[in-house]
Amino acid sequence: MNESSSRPASLATSSVVVSETELIAYRETLKAYRMDAAWARPPGFVPEPPDEGPAVWHWRDVREPLLRSANLIGTREVERRILSLVQGTKLTSNLQLVMPGEIARAHRHTMAALRMIIESEGAYTVVESDLLPMAPGDLVTTPNWTWHDHANVTGAPAIWLDGLDVPLVAGALGARLQEGYPEDAQRPREDADVSLLKYGTGGLLPAWENWGQPYSPLFHYPWARAKAALDGLAAVETGSPFDGVIMQYTNPTSGGPVMPTIACYCQVLKPRQRTRSHRHTSAAIYHVIEGEGYSVVDGTRLDWETKATFCVPQSSFHEHVNASPSQPAYLFSYTDDPVYRSLALYREEAAP
Amino acid sequence: MNESSSRPASLATSSVVVSETELIAYRETLKAYRMDAAWARPPGFVPEPPDEGPAVWHWRDVREPLLRSANLIGTREVERRILSLVQGTKLTSNLQLVMPGEIARAHRHTMAALRMIIESEGAYTVVESDLLPMAPGDLVTTPNWTWHDHANVTGAPAIWLDGLDVPLVAGALGARLQEGYPEDAQRPREDADVSLLKYGTGGLLPAWENWGQPYSPLFHYPWARAKAALDGLAAVETGSPFDGVIMQYTNPTSGGPVMPTIACYCQVLKPRQRTRSHRHTSAAIYHVIEGEGYSVVDGTRLDWETKATFCVPQSSFHEHVNASPSQPAYLFSYTDDPVYRSLALYREEAAP
Amino acid sequence: MNESSSRPASLATSSVVVSETELIAYRETLKAYRMDAAWARPPGFVPEPPDEGPAVWHWRDVREPLLRSANLIGTREVERRILSLVQGTKLTSNLQLVMPGEIARAHRHTMAALRMIIESEGAYTVVESDLLPMAPGDLVTTPNWTWHDHANVTGAPAIWLDGLDVPLVAGALGARLQEGYPEDAQRPREDADVSLLKYGTGGLLPAWENWGQPYSPLFHYPWARAKAALDGLAAVETGSPFDGVIMQYTNPTSGGPVMPTIACYCQVLKPRQRTRSHRHTSAAIYHVIEGEGYSVVDGTRLDWETKATFCVPQSSFHEHVNASPSQPAYLFSYTDDPVYRSLALYREEAAP
Amino acid sequence: MNESSSRPASLATSSVVVSETELIAYRETLKAYRMDAAWARPPGFVPEPPDEGPAVWHWRDVREPLLRSANLIGTREVERRILSLVQGTKLTSNLQLVMPGEIARAHRHTMAALRMIIESEGAYTVVESDLLPMAPGDLVTTPNWTWHDHANVTGAPAIWLDGLDVPLVAGALGARLQEGYPEDAQRPREDADVSLLKYGTGGLLPAWENWGQPYSPLFHYPWARAKAALDGLAAVETGSPFDGVIMQYTNPTSGGPVMPTIACYCQVLKPRQRTRSHRHTSAAIYHVIEGEGYSVVDGTRLDWETKATFCVPQSSFHEHVNASPSQPAYLFSYTDDPVYRSLALYREEAAP
Repeated sequence: MNESSSRPASLATSSVVVSETELIAYRETLKAYRMDAAWARPPGFVPEPPDEGPAVWHWRDVREPLLRSANLIGTREVERRILSLVQGTKLTSNLQLVMPGEIARAHRHTMAALRMIIESEGAYTVVESDLLPMAPGDLVTTPNWTWHDHANVTGAPAIWLDGLDVPLVAGALGARLQEGYPEDAQRPREDADVSLLKYGTGGLLPAWENWGQPYSPLFHYPWARAKAALDGLAAVETGSPFDGVIMQYTNPTSGGPVMPTIACYCQVLKPRQRTRSHRHTSAAIYHVIEGEGYSVVDGTRLDWETKATFCVPQSSFHEHVNASPSQPAYLFSYTDDPVYRSLALYREEAAP
Repeated sequence: MNESSSRPASLATSSVVVSETELIAYRETLKAYRMDAAWARPPGFVPEPPDEGPAVWHWRDVREPLLRSANLIGTREVERRILSLVQGTKLTSNLQLVMPGEIARAHRHTMAALRMIIESEGAYTVVESDLLPMAPGDLVTTPNWTWHDHANVTGAPAIWLDGLDVPLVAGALGARLQEGYPEDAQRPREDADVSLLKYGTGGLLPAWENWGQPYSPLFHYPWARAKAALDGLAAVETGSPFDGVIMQYTNPTSGGPVMPTIACYCQVLKPRQRTRSHRHTSAAIYHVIEGEGYSVVDGTRLDWETKATFCVPQSSFHEHVNASPSQPAYLFSYTDDPVYRSLALYREEAAP
Repeated sequence: MNESSSRPASLATSSVVVSETELIAYRETLKAYRMDAAWARPPGFVPEPPDEGPAVWHWRDVREPLLRSANLIGTREVERRILSLVQGTKLTSNLQLVMPGEIARAHRHTMAALRMIIESEGAYTVVESDLLPMAPGDLVTTPNWTWHDHANVTGAPAIWLDGLDVPLVAGALGARLQEGYPEDAQRPREDADVSLLKYGTGGLLPAWENWGQPYSPLFHYPWARAKAALDGLAAVETGSPFDGVIMQYTNPTSGGPVMPTIACYCQVLKPRQRTRSHRHTSAAIYHVIEGEGYSVVDGTRLDWETKATFCVPQSSFHEHVNASPSQPAYLFSYTDDPVYRSLALYREEAAP
Repeated sequence: MNESSSRPASLATSSVVVSETELIAYRETLKAYRMDAAWARPPGFVPEPPDEGPAVWHWRDVREPLLRSANLIGTREVERRILSLVQGTKLTSNLQLVMPGEIARAHRHTMAALRMIIESEGAYTVVESDLLPMAPGDLVTTPNWTWHDHANVTGAPAIWLDGLDVPLVAGALGARLQEGYPEDAQRPREDADVSLLKYGTGGLLPAWENWGQPYSPLFHYPWARAKAALDGLAAVETGSPFDGVIMQYTNPTSGGPVMPTIACYCQVLKPRQRTRSHRHTSAAIYHVIEGEGYSVVDGTRLDWETKATFCVPQSSFHEHVNASPSQPAYLFSYTDDPVYRSLALYREEAAP
């Protein structure tokens, strides 16, 4: 990706301001889908996680309200144009929209974040000057205190699921720090996807560097590679009784989770596969990269299909079913299990 | 690779015995090339590392004597048909030959070993029941106490460089244990290259397993992937002043070396690149996967070309030069630096 | 300590029940001292940490109300007779009273706890069958999921400061589990203070055991030893500019904190010593073992004297002053810094 | 200990030179006791460990020849006046003599060393400027690359057992580096035994320091404390079936061995105690601090008594017997087990 094509002269923040009345009306309509316009809250506001159980957000429901937000707010007015999924875990889940030609401004914060790309024809994130192209299914991480900004250089909207640890870090632990970058966007280094070149090849690491950070030096995990890995593995292994063939996105310098507070996973359920039920201290947010089926969470059936998002509250029994007789189902998930493991509070239990 | 094709009915150990006179004559001819027939030594014999300096073994010199050994000894008579390169480091370097249709019998030992494949059209190693195909430039590891056997199912000889820690483990530390497998060869599981499927994808690990061993769960590092990684990285990075763009083969569950006593590296020298000189407590054995150039080791110039092997004794200053104006040079190397690092004895120094 | 003397026939839980009216009146009087009767709250209730700043609890104020609680509730009715200090950190601080002849029943929970003994002539805690005598200034730990009960075999009340991580573990992380022991008290092994015998000698560990738990195997840190260590060190070192000569109570098998969520410290301020001001992400609760002086916390002066307790909220600048021209001051403190360190969220900053 | 008393004006290296003939005769007499005058060997000479089995050196035999060495060599002529015990392990064992008023010059080397004091009324070692008093039974360490010198400020000879890893580090690993100090002795800081004050109290560590070295910050482990710990533990525990109540001298900041290549232990055998036989990859050198009994090593009975030294070669079955019906026996030992553990080569086996 060369500089001229990726950063057109026209790339900029956008400016839109609407009336308070319009905004209130909009937020009211979002309630039907258990969403809220996070950008409309007071700055720094951290809502208490509501006392809600398992839930699913269907793509057919959430996409249109999200696209409408582009008419209500600009990325000059707010740093992120996001709709928050209202759910009771300690992990934030937002849908973010970046419109063609638009920049979402550079900043950094102590909250760790990840992006699971849903729609993108050529958007990218810049993390610490490294330009990371975003394709559907890709995982992009922006760990604690790394500079990051987003841009969309194509003609189609870019949408992704944001995962963060806001309720934990900003809420429970009172450790929120946030800082704006001096400019709207970082100037990325000329070569793109350098973290992937350096740290993305299985079993090989640059020998001249000592990675000293607590998070993974790899910021971009392309879906094409993860899918190939899952398919290859599913051909030869059965995996976990509770999750089937499931892989963790890891820090290649330690084998640990991508970030100290959030772990990410991808898994494939074979046609008609039904997993055994179990539960654990951590909660999880799932995103269906491809497939259709359902999960039973503490007795509630959550039907899901491609691009749906659903949540499994902490300590809830859950099992997954791929309803298709012929197609595999691919799930992405992120959890706070590293927090419980680090503090020796993690427990896991099979359903009786 | 399915069972029937990979393990033809005809696959077996071979049997050849020649006269003592012939053997002595053969070993005499090897001296000119600083080699010895390790299989002709008394069982369990660990030669003292000779007090020798830097040296190079050219492929044009060593290939023919190695092939002749097939007429002198069978793999029924000795577990491994190997010529040892006589050099003064604490790391063993052997050239191993497995003839078409031949098995090198299954065993395990406390010495750690690796194989850098030089010629192979379809040989394989089985490590702990996992069948690992071997292509030129591939790295295959057989760590401490893992069962392993080799076979060649094609019509052409298979040759590789064996790297081991015999002088350290069997010699200095007196910790040699060795055991024969009840049969000539392990029966591999039906699916091949499973370690690569499970642990070979960058940044992804099977989430249902806890790898509890001190060595890498990945036993096969294909050259095609390593070369692509080096080329990709060389396009965007300059790497180390002493080694250029160099990557370590690592344990993906820890980011550490492939085995507790041996580290492996691959590197690319750009056309005309000359590195700065440095030295370190550890020694290194290099193998030229592709390219031509020379290294200066404590003042001695070692010219090398594709398939040559050369050694850099511990604490020797060394620098590398790619002599080609247009082609990259690819070097593989293995060292005992993990030993010195684990025992807090490692030091490194740039040449003045 | 032999069984017969330590566990007299008369040792038992006590039973007292008073009217709701009396209870309400009592709780009302506690408000003046920023305390609450934690035992009178609904079972499992975890109050939100109030939004309060630095504060001090003087022994002259809190002792009498605490002693009165013995007339209001028995240890048959509630597992612990505790007054909670109302403060805004994520660490619980309670004053606990065990009357002569009384047992506080055995249980275990996922919340980690510690006891800093204030008054005791012969009370003890049993942790995992190990009987730990409690003398003033001693630190006793009862880590996550260890069985523990308390008893008082003397004629005088026993009082200590309880430190816990309830707001974090039961509140923020939703990881509370609690279990009652089948009997009122564990039957301790005959030998007392075994953890101290095994793990309490500097630089020596039992060689036949592999301690596999995430917390310290040492449950009892006698004040006599800690004081001697502080005095010895103060004679030869100046320590930290922010804390003077300060030592961490550590896990001797790892050098880390006593428990994964709570760290404990003791420090000595020399006569007239004034430390420099700094702040950090973690909060701290201090207890004055001996001495008088004051601390300035975010501009608020907290005067303290022997047996006072005070709190420093997270990210508050604080400095300590020993007001005595001739006597050292000894402070104990416990903090949640291990949480922030484990999650890579810890920061520290000197005052400008 | 103040400067004036500990470092009298008369403290200095001594100078003695005798004829080559006398020296040869002396070395000849040492052979009867399996000793050699290590100081008479060429500088830097590392003898191959001889192929010898278990052996014992009785104090009644070795003391007199050692004292004679003071008439044969001065500490101006050689850095250390030591008799080497000739044994086949990879660990050096020397008896060192420092005469009244004498200095053994300051130097440092990559070999790790320890001292088990046998006779001393007031000798000391200075390690990195810290003056460490030496009393009988004390363990003093001088880790890899730490400056150290010895002195004897009393009227009686000082003698100790030196343990080193010379055959491993200088021999097998070729990693010897050695450096003389610019002066005969370091000028110690005024306060003595500071490492003990800082790191010697059980479960307490200075909170303002981050110990970043791979060895223990504690350089002095007094016998009085170790003996009390063993006696206390022996009253309540049975310990290991193979070793009885045995404690490891540890690094209080990690719980690991005192140095990366050498582990140290002390143990008490109760009257008439006989341990079960076992063996392990590592070798051990034992010193009898107090007591009498015997050990059976691969079928050879080694009788020992107070101040004897004996060796157990690697992988030899061994068991210990305290022959006294009434007195405990105290053994000190040092081993190379950390080397085998770090390199994943350690194995242990009970006798059938």
